[in-house]
Amino acid sequence: MKRIAVDMDDVIADATQKFCDMYKAEFNITIEKHDFLGKEFFDVIPAEHQKSVHDYHFQKGFFRDLLVMPHAQMVLEKLSKKYEIFIASAAMEFPNSLNEKYDWMKENFPFIPWHNIVFCGDKSVIKADYLIDDRLKNLKGFDGKGIVFTAPHNLKKAYEQFTRANNWLEIEKMLL
Amino acid sequence: MKRIAVDMDDVIADATQKFCDMYKAEFNITIEKHDFLGKEFFDVIPAEHQKSVHDYHFQKGFFRDLLVMPHAQMVLEKLSKKYEIFIASAAMEFPNSLNEKYDWMKENFPFIPWHNIVFCGDKSVIKADYLIDDRLKNLKGFDGKGIVFTAPHNLKKAYEQFTRANNWLEIEKMLL
Repeated sequence: MKRIAVDMDDVIADATQKFCDMYKAEFNITIEKHDFLGKEFFDVIPAEHQKSVHDYHFQKGFFRDLLVMPHAQMVLEKLSKKYEIFIASAAMEFPNSLNEKYDWMKENFPFIPWHNIVFCGDKSVIKADYLIDDRLKNLKGFDGKGIVFTAPHNLKKAYEQFTRANNWLEIEKMLL
Repeated sequence: MKRIAVDMDDVIADATQKFCDMYKAEFNITIEKHDFLGKEFFDVIPAEHQKSVHDYHFQKGFFRDLLVMPHAQMVLEKLSKKYEIFIASAAMEFPNSLNEKYDWMKENFPFIPWHNIVFCGDKSVIKADYLIDDRLKNLKGFDGKGIVFTAPHNLKKAYEQFTRANNWLEIEKMLL
């Protein structure tokens, strides 16, 4: 059975939307995903807001109630009949996230067993046939087939070496 | 640079000793490691104590103050000059352990960066050249070179297919 490793933030969990929502709540400024295509969220906010926004990731609860990316549950449940699915999150960067991510997975992806969840820092340590991820640093270090999952920040030339999936329905077509 | 993945419990952190200590504290019965060679701790305690002892793992704080295995720090620090060292713990089985293990690593192995720590369930997902581990299930699923690290429970025939290291000084000789 082939194995697919799947990133969490901005692949199955909508972390970017949470940034937009928290920013709106704090500064009463609306930024939407299409406002920073090809850029990071941090590139489109003023210097005096950087520190405050950077801290969002580290706030208790940040990772616990992220929205599930559309169709991720349905497609991953189908894929899990044909592939071994491992969720691989670079969670170690945010130690506060470890338990929140674990609980989030249990709530939203109960069909993925705990022993198929991996929290790491460097994804080059992951052995799998495919990696679905939104970050170049993760895809580059991986030695199977990398699939870049579209997020605002990754609409850049550097990603052209990878197959792109814009959403989970495209992943379904690609892998099933 | 070749990569060594290293298990935590009973390889760098003395979880078995903590069981002995907690058992002594609860039941006032002394069990030492040489009392259960070739067996699990659970094999040498009466049935009426099983439930209580099984819960030790899940108690808050269990993983936070484990003793460091002798010479593990010195040898891993030396190895880290010649190899990439990843600490790979099947921590997902004990969600309470995630933050405790992270903090324990930071305190006791500050020279191992956070991005080289992996918490997983199934170690077949780890890509490395060597795995130092005390459990057959982990060593069997791994496709590099498995090194069994001696613990009371693993003095069994089933482990004969792996190179054995009885302590960290033997690892030093073997790999440096």
